[in-house]
Amino acid sequence: MNADAKKIALRMIPYGIYVLTADDGKTVAAATVNWVTQTSFAPPLVAVAIKADSHAYAVVKNAGTFALNMLGKDGKGAAFTFFKPAEAADGRIGGQPYTKGATGAPLLTAAPAAVECRVKQIVAEGDHHTVIAEVVEAHLPKPPTGRPDAAILEMKDLGDNVFYGG
Amino acid sequence: MNADAKKIALRMIPYGIYVLTADDGKTVAAATVNWVTQTSFAPPLVAVAIKADSHAYAVVKNAGTFALNMLGKDGKGAAFTFFKPAEAADGRIGGQPYTKGATGAPLLTAAPAAVECRVKQIVAEGDHHTVIAEVVEAHLPKPPTGRPDAAILEMKDLGDNVFYGG
Repeated sequence: MNADAKKIALRMIPYGIYVLTADDGKTVAAATVNWVTQTSFAPPLVAVAIKADSHAYAVVKNAGTFALNMLGKDGKGAAFTFFKPAEAADGRIGGQPYTKGATGAPLLTAAPAAVECRVKQIVAEGDHHTVIAEVVEAHLPKPPTGRPDAAILEMKDLGDNVFYGG
Repeated sequence: MNADAKKIALRMIPYGIYVLTADDGKTVAAATVNWVTQTSFAPPLVAVAIKADSHAYAVVKNAGTFALNMLGKDGKGAAFTFFKPAEAADGRIGGQPYTKGATGAPLLTAAPAAVECRVKQIVAEGDHHTVIAEVVEAHLPKPPTGRPDAAILEMKDLGDNVFYGG
């Protein structure tokens, strides 16, 4: 396989930027992720690939639930904050205030939207494992004014040479 | 769950547009898809959710291989062509010329890039099933000049009210 062609072809896939959050009762985790897609309408399912050796993955597995917090165009700071492990204390994680959702998953106050998900299956293949989960709750504190997919922070908004994929 | 919040939050996920192709030796299938994400670097894996009652899904299952043909900004016609079932004859499908890739999967001549994939696992949950597959070959006949993720045809390029998700 031509490694360069593989890298560039895979980098053509456009990505939004999300903060994945989970709370297993012992620890709160928050991590920036981008490998996300819907996978079913009925029931509403999403797939998210999470680094298999990460703290966030361990907490999601334990909790069985998580939230995907959609970041807005002003969410670049939050995106970079949660590239590294973040500590939770006093209703904040990585400095960001949050509340608890219906599933117990943290909802970032700054996020314009979030979906809460219940894990259905995990595909343990590769360096990230793919979590297939049902959307069981949704929050839209700041509804987008135009197309919803024009309102989310995107990988290409993070910098000319920022990629996660390839 | 607030159905409207769920719809809009899920529609915040940005999508590229791909023509999924497969050839099981009996039939050639081509279908426009958008529920795609990378899921691992090593090995390189992707997830694609395919309508479970579709012809394309049956052919992918039989073949065990498929290609994701990335469409360019000029690929709107192809995107709409493969929203409906397409017939293959004389080296064309839906009017689009194609060649056979290393895995046997059809490669659309008009696509600026394509990855050929081998199915690893299928998650049979929901109205679309999620195929986890390894990228085993890549083609880049028309390398993008800027960011690769700025060169792909996106859902939002198809029309103000065109969505597949929510």
